[in-house]
Amino acid sequence: MFGWFNTRKKQQSVLKSITFCEDSQLIKLPNPILPKIELGIAFQRRRSTRQFIRSALSLQELSNLLWCASGVNKELSDGGILLTAPTASNHQEIVIYVFNSVGCYRYEPGNHSIKPIFNGDIRALIGEQSFVANAPVIVAIVADYSKMTKHNAWKRKRYSCVDAGYVSQNIYLHCAAEDLATVACGKIHHDFIKKNIGLKNGDVILCHPIG
Amino acid sequence: MFGWFNTRKKQQSVLKSITFCEDSQLIKLPNPILPKIELGIAFQRRRSTRQFIRSALSLQELSNLLWCASGVNKELSDGGILLTAPTASNHQEIVIYVFNSVGCYRYEPGNHSIKPIFNGDIRALIGEQSFVANAPVIVAIVADYSKMTKHNAWKRKRYSCVDAGYVSQNIYLHCAAEDLATVACGKIHHDFIKKNIGLKNGDVILCHPIG
Repeated sequence: MFGWFNTRKKQQSVLKSITFCEDSQLIKLPNPILPKIELGIAFQRRRSTRQFIRSALSLQELSNLLWCASGVNKELSDGGILLTAPTASNHQEIVIYVFNSVGCYRYEPGNHSIKPIFNGDIRALIGEQSFVANAPVIVAIVADYSKMTKHNAWKRKRYSCVDAGYVSQNIYLHCAAEDLATVACGKIHHDFIKKNIGLKNGDVILCHPIG
Repeated sequence: MFGWFNTRKKQQSVLKSITFCEDSQLIKLPNPILPKIELGIAFQRRRSTRQFIRSALSLQELSNLLWCASGVNKELSDGGILLTAPTASNHQEIVIYVFNSVGCYRYEPGNHSIKPIFNGDIRALIGEQSFVANAPVIVAIVADYSKMTKHNAWKRKRYSCVDAGYVSQNIYLHCAAEDLATVACGKIHHDFIKKNIGLKNGDVILCHPIG
């Protein structure tokens, strides 16, 4: 009871301290350097780890991570794109947000860029488990239901969870390749994250502390 | 309406033709040969494909596929196992079934074996989409809710979908490595499959035709 009250108080105080970047420019990421590890070795090394030792990720490392998670792996002749992670009916409803000590960014796979959403460090208030706050980077895997035009509410919930699993496994395998610790967390402050990223019709499905 | 009626009639007729193998022996799979393709190349090649050209998969190929999908990647000192695909709270509730022209088998990752469930070819009645029937092998990704002891009904549904996504992505990447066609299908005859595999408390989340 008091734990919940304290968390709410901290969340409200953090909400006041962040500044939204409404007209922010996209930050172009460097071209990703693809992981050269053998796929079989990556499967062998895939692990859930809760101890983070890295202090920060460079822009190049962020580029590699985000491309593996759900980057463009084919440009179609009609202007469409295909991604490293599939989505049901190719809705491409999964949106990836990155939280670090500076602020929050939304990944735009189409031009392999990140868009600043706000300045301010909310990492300590994302997970219900304390280890999440120790990671230099937290990736949130978010479903934007407004893109799932072919599905009813039940299918939206069901398939967006499957689609989050695709991205999450890509992150696990990338981290196995790069010797980074990570674990998929479902015990997160969904409503707090939704409010911060301005998500009205959707859900925050998983968060990955990484480092 | 008539389409549904015809499907039901075909299902009932197929159900009569299969024979269950109640006391069947486990079939030990050969040690898996791990995919040597670079992880980054596998991400580049990951694709949903609906045309199947292969006639059958050898036992060695099935071994490689199933280990990648959700095989043991670490044996723990307490006798537990870790898998290539994570599960929420390590419930390991995902069970993989294989359907081919001979029958149906359940994958047992602990001893890397398959257990015959029934003899009879039901591939033509698994998917709602006709291309599914053309694959030499169909893999079903199934959640056994009875193993999800730490979760309530809502979390069981949610997390088992995420966990199915992990296995499905491993299958996609394995197929990218081995030049096999595959696509994850959610439009499947859930109740028919559940009845055939004898699943009482759980759900068939996805099927992967492969070939």
